[in-house]
Amino acid sequence: MATVEQTPDTSRKYNVIGTRPVRHDGVDKVTGRARYGADIKLTGQLEGFILRSPHAHARIRSIDVSDAEKVPGVRAIVTNADLPDPGDRVAELGEGAVNMKHLATNVLAKDRVLYRGHAVAAVAADNRHIAEEAARLIKVEYEKLPPVLDVREAMSDEAPRLHDDIYTKEMGEAVTETPSNVAQRICHEKGDVDKGFAEADLVIEREFRTATVHQGYIEPHTSTALWNADDHITIWTSTQGTFTVRQQCAELVGVPVSNIRVVPMEIGGGFGGKISVYEQPVAAMLSKKSGRPVRVTMDRTDVLEATGPTPGSYIRVKLGVTKDGRLTAGEAWMAYEAGAYPGSPIGAGSMCIFACYDIPAGRVEGFDVCVNKPRTNAYRAPGSTNAAFAVETVIEEICEKLGICPLEFRMQNAAKEGTRRIDGYRFPRIGLYETLEAVKNSEHWNTPLEGPNRGRGVASGFWFNAGLKSSVTVTVNADGKVSLIEGSTDIGGTRTSIAMQLAETLGIPVEDVNPSVVDTDSVGYTDVTGGSRVTLATGLAAYEAGLKIRDQFCQHAARIWGVTTEEVEYEDGGVSGPDGKRFEFGELADRIQKSGEPVTASTSVTAPASSNAFGTHCVDVEVDPDLGKVTILRYTAVQDAGTAIHPAYVEGQMQGGAAQGIGWALNEEYFYDAEGNLRNSSLLDYRMPTCFDLPMIDTIIVEVPNPDHPYGVRGVGEVPICPPPAAIGAAIANAVGVRMHELPMSPPRLLHEILAKRNA
Amino acid sequence: MATVEQTPDTSRKYNVIGTRPVRHDGVDKVTGRARYGADIKLTGQLEGFILRSPHAHARIRSIDVSDAEKVPGVRAIVTNADLPDPGDRVAELGEGAVNMKHLATNVLAKDRVLYRGHAVAAVAADNRHIAEEAARLIKVEYEKLPPVLDVREAMSDEAPRLHDDIYTKEMGEAVTETPSNVAQRICHEKGDVDKGFAEADLVIEREFRTATVHQGYIEPHTSTALWNADDHITIWTSTQGTFTVRQQCAELVGVPVSNIRVVPMEIGGGFGGKISVYEQPVAAMLSKKSGRPVRVTMDRTDVLEATGPTPGSYIRVKLGVTKDGRLTAGEAWMAYEAGAYPGSPIGAGSMCIFACYDIPAGRVEGFDVCVNKPRTNAYRAPGSTNAAFAVETVIEEICEKLGICPLEFRMQNAAKEGTRRIDGYRFPRIGLYETLEAVKNSEHWNTPLEGPNRGRGVASGFWFNAGLKSSVTVTVNADGKVSLIEGSTDIGGTRTSIAMQLAETLGIPVEDVNPSVVDTDSVGYTDVTGGSRVTLATGLAAYEAGLKIRDQFCQHAARIWGVTTEEVEYEDGGVSGPDGKRFEFGELADRIQKSGEPVTASTSVTAPASSNAFGTHCVDVEVDPDLGKVTILRYTAVQDAGTAIHPAYVEGQMQGGAAQGIGWALNEEYFYDAEGNLRNSSLLDYRMPTCFDLPMIDTIIVEVPNPDHPYGVRGVGEVPICPPPAAIGAAIANAVGVRMHELPMSPPRLLHEILAKRNA
Repeated sequence: MATVEQTPDTSRKYNVIGTRPVRHDGVDKVTGRARYGADIKLTGQLEGFILRSPHAHARIRSIDVSDAEKVPGVRAIVTNADLPDPGDRVAELGEGAVNMKHLATNVLAKDRVLYRGHAVAAVAADNRHIAEEAARLIKVEYEKLPPVLDVREAMSDEAPRLHDDIYTKEMGEAVTETPSNVAQRICHEKGDVDKGFAEADLVIEREFRTATVHQGYIEPHTSTALWNADDHITIWTSTQGTFTVRQQCAELVGVPVSNIRVVPMEIGGGFGGKISVYEQPVAAMLSKKSGRPVRVTMDRTDVLEATGPTPGSYIRVKLGVTKDGRLTAGEAWMAYEAGAYPGSPIGAGSMCIFACYDIPAGRVEGFDVCVNKPRTNAYRAPGSTNAAFAVETVIEEICEKLGICPLEFRMQNAAKEGTRRIDGYRFPRIGLYETLEAVKNSEHWNTPLEGPNRGRGVASGFWFNAGLKSSVTVTVNADGKVSLIEGSTDIGGTRTSIAMQLAETLGIPVEDVNPSVVDTDSVGYTDVTGGSRVTLATGLAAYEAGLKIRDQFCQHAARIWGVTTEEVEYEDGGVSGPDGKRFEFGELADRIQKSGEPVTASTSVTAPASSNAFGTHCVDVEVDPDLGKVTILRYTAVQDAGTAIHPAYVEGQMQGGAAQGIGWALNEEYFYDAEGNLRNSSLLDYRMPTCFDLPMIDTIIVEVPNPDHPYGVRGVGEVPICPPPAAIGAAIANAVGVRMHELPMSPPRLLHEILAKRNA
Repeated sequence: MATVEQTPDTSRKYNVIGTRPVRHDGVDKVTGRARYGADIKLTGQLEGFILRSPHAHARIRSIDVSDAEKVPGVRAIVTNADLPDPGDRVAELGEGAVNMKHLATNVLAKDRVLYRGHAVAAVAADNRHIAEEAARLIKVEYEKLPPVLDVREAMSDEAPRLHDDIYTKEMGEAVTETPSNVAQRICHEKGDVDKGFAEADLVIEREFRTATVHQGYIEPHTSTALWNADDHITIWTSTQGTFTVRQQCAELVGVPVSNIRVVPMEIGGGFGGKISVYEQPVAAMLSKKSGRPVRVTMDRTDVLEATGPTPGSYIRVKLGVTKDGRLTAGEAWMAYEAGAYPGSPIGAGSMCIFACYDIPAGRVEGFDVCVNKPRTNAYRAPGSTNAAFAVETVIEEICEKLGICPLEFRMQNAAKEGTRRIDGYRFPRIGLYETLEAVKNSEHWNTPLEGPNRGRGVASGFWFNAGLKSSVTVTVNADGKVSLIEGSTDIGGTRTSIAMQLAETLGIPVEDVNPSVVDTDSVGYTDVTGGSRVTLATGLAAYEAGLKIRDQFCQHAARIWGVTTEEVEYEDGGVSGPDGKRFEFGELADRIQKSGEPVTASTSVTAPASSNAFGTHCVDVEVDPDLGKVTILRYTAVQDAGTAIHPAYVEGQMQGGAAQGIGWALNEEYFYDAEGNLRNSSLLDYRMPTCFDLPMIDTIIVEVPNPDHPYGVRGVGEVPICPPPAAIGAAIANAVGVRMHELPMSPPRLLHEILAKRNA
């Protein structure tokens, strides 16, 4: 893997940052010692089972648990009636507002079920078999209602309506007089759009559809809750955000946040899907009623039917361009499926759609639309992949029509420092251009692709990265090693990427930092692991804690030497003083242990949300024209990482994101029948790419440091999922002359287009 | 229970300190939810069994584990040969130096066994029965040696010698040319002792013997260790000092301290006996060899035979006094049994023995002597109870001979601010006089005691309290409640006593503080829970963290109001600003959560070790002259608590200490046969007092604030064990005219004296 370094500040040298140490949790993970949610075994622990709706849309007339209660070994049964009334409260969380009434009825349905798999009741029993047997005896009387499963159908006035109390909102205000499936309309506009299109020599408008896809984390959701007699609750869970679980559960079960201790277990994948609560409050209520610890674990069908996939969408994109390849105007109309409750990533999608381009004028209209599918949740750059597929495909068609190299076109129109997005945000120093340049200079791009039915495509993508709050505590041990306590759950190796920033700040080896992810009682408030924020924001907290430790070390050294703190300096992993006096880090740590106050520092930060990640991918495909099957021949992902703290992890994120994007491009989709039953709710039928489907994904890291971070970090986790569908679409067009406008570009769909073209 | 308040600074008023809130861990403990060491259940966990020496003194010729290894289900066997050579390293710990070679051979014997029950080998197997069965198949070839069990016999040149490499040390230097059982000689001298005795009108010299007694905690030692493939070790254990376990285990198993994470489970009693490691490194080595988590739990016989009781002792005390009751000189000769390895509390005993008295001249000579008993360990004011029994008994005899009221005598001679102890230390403001005064004014003292064979006695006691290092981290939650993370294990309600000091500092209810005792990775270095130091020192850390939180709150408020920090003030649990601006604590916490950096603070302190606790007890007894049985009729314990943070806990410590002192006085003793076999190694035969043996113990708290603590705290846990034996001895003398000079004053021993007097 080639690494192109483009650090502008070449004088800056790091000792730890940019190296590739073994991850601190690595040995535990490969030897099976890491403890996951399902490893929790407590004295008297019960197993829970959640009964789910067999209907996509129905009114609940009654729930009768009397037979279920009689099953020997059943200890508690809960329904929505056991949850306190959440009122209309909207809780502000690190990642935005959450409507507690919707969350409560998603966790346990109240009057209606809104999707197949919607939780209706839960049983705790001595074992899972008893719990399931009893749950099957719960008599739920349903009045079936017609479901609506397509975003544009749901927008029509004639569509079945999911909620009677949701009106379309704009800028927080209701703008419809009758309830609607459209929960929100977003509009961004910049410049004179009509004038822009008038100046264009070529205007192309296309419409796109993308299917609902799931994050596909390997570990199903699992939580164990213990509700003690003093209303203090402990929840062991697989989550991306312990403090989010704490707040959502507190709201849902009706206790103050500080009554809940959330203990993060290792997480077997999340990708955005393990932020919202599902089984946690159910386990808590079952524990409250039974007085025992209760574990609730989903199976794969539960995960696919009832957790939060990313939305299916309909997008219309129109772009105007001069004949010399200058974009003059853009327009997008975007409708995202929210699933059963409002909250699709339409906001993010509408910010991202034109973000890669410096367009003088543009208009974006976006809609958040309820349909009878599970409530969507975040999935790696949520909303941006759908948007990138649409806009990048139109860009490719423009390039084809104008006969301009797609890289040259993008370099000419690329957003750069000072470019104002359609939604008004002005970019600071960003690295999109450098990613395009890196592709242009790459061995991949410069190697001709030969052979029939083969084609090459490129596409760019954007994600804006969250900042939010992070806390760490650092303590120095007498052996010169440092404990790093953090609130950020580690889904992508962030124990190490944060530890590296602390080690860099202290000038010590990263192996001397011992990172721990701890529970919500044991560290300051920390927002979710998501939004590509942890290495950026928690790294910033670690940097600041490191500075505090340096100060304390200087004070101790000055005291020991009997000099002023002005006479000492922290440098090269130790303290230097007058007359050649010197303490190495470990030496001083030992001295302090013997005579002084232990050295500890806590830091909390609210990180700036401006790291702005861009990536450009290049892919070679071969299409089987008789089967419509696409084979990825070669794939190169290029990305601006700002500063790659641990390049192997950055590469891993790029490879993982690309792999997920390829799955989304070619095969993954929620396949519903007309009744709203998910017909492929297993990993045999929901087809994610495996190592048999993918070549080694090459990576090129570009480094344009983020000016708002002491080490120049940009978030890297999300953007690599954005370019693949468009890049593959471009490669398919290049291979077989068919331009796809719908995801996934699966064999039947692609074959249909190939045959249509052949027969045209 | 009467409470006499003598706070000099009467203007000072506290909102939280001095109240009696329900302890934070109370509900969990009474509902059985609290998790103790034996509750640990890990995947693949093995059980360990330790094979122990049947001899009090023997050379180990060989250990053959070949048969044991063949037992199906056996996963690992360890002996001392598996431990790395500790060399001659002496580790500095919070509570003093620990000789690692001695600790290593105490944990697993090397060439010799030095006491009955000495650990020789350990087996880990699928269950405890297999482990025990296999351990019994280990063939240990012993060469028996004669044991020595009495401290003065052990001091003779002819005595069997336990170690070939121990020479008598004075001030750290060896002073003998041949090895000796006497490991240390201590000498303190003040003034002209001969002149002091020459000035005396009455000189009394008596000799005293006290038996070996055990702390008698209800929970046996239990630890589970998991040695991971990367040499990181987790140890779940019942301990008073997680960082002590960490350091001792690190030294013994040969890894850096930061490789070990010690997780404190709830502790079922310690009293000083759960500081040193026993089974922890054994469990760790078994885990290393088996690759599995291993739990090792002692049974009661193990606990009594092989953990660390407090020493038996021989003490000679000589006091000179003028006929008007003024002490002129004192002399003490003290020999304490160290058990198998050096380390009796002779140092503390020699500091404490005359500490209650302002004596112009004195000399103390002390000896630390090895005998074939388990290595002694701390037990509540270690070394002071033995000393108080001796000196207070002589004081009583003086009072009797001179016809002076024992309270008046003590008030006349009491140590006070400025008094210099024999070892040179000068007292700051202390409250001994006030405890004597409180007894004199008490209803108990002023109620005549009537009836035959009844008597009343008083005695005082002293303990000096440790300071040492403590760390806390405090984080503020959005609901206005506060998480308090501490490294001090909670053996006596210190979660609450520390939380109260934080609540007082912040001006919030103590129920709004949520204290957690966390593992060694998750908090700064904290010394043991011992030396009556936690409420003092960890309380000080909480106070200082509270001040930091107040500062941050003021900064946030100033930012929100747009004023300078000089214009705002933290008062009454909130921040006040100009023009009547005001934020209550919870209100500001919520605001900060929404717009600001989370509020956290870590603090580490090294607390001053000068809190100096004194107590005076008064007891009424009735002696059965035909059986020698003593019944406690009434008991009042008076103590200077400095400031009683939680009076109910102070009273509980006074009552608990008095109860243990009564057991030591009347019944408890290690009963060895001539071969060195402990003949009463069960709680049926080792007779601790139960609730049937004791009346309600009344308490009077005196408050003379410690000038070195922001809230005036003095350590309270230990001193109440010191006065009981002497007070009961005085009461027996008062009842039946027999003055006892040996502990326990058990029925046979007392009857022997009564009969001797009757027959004299």
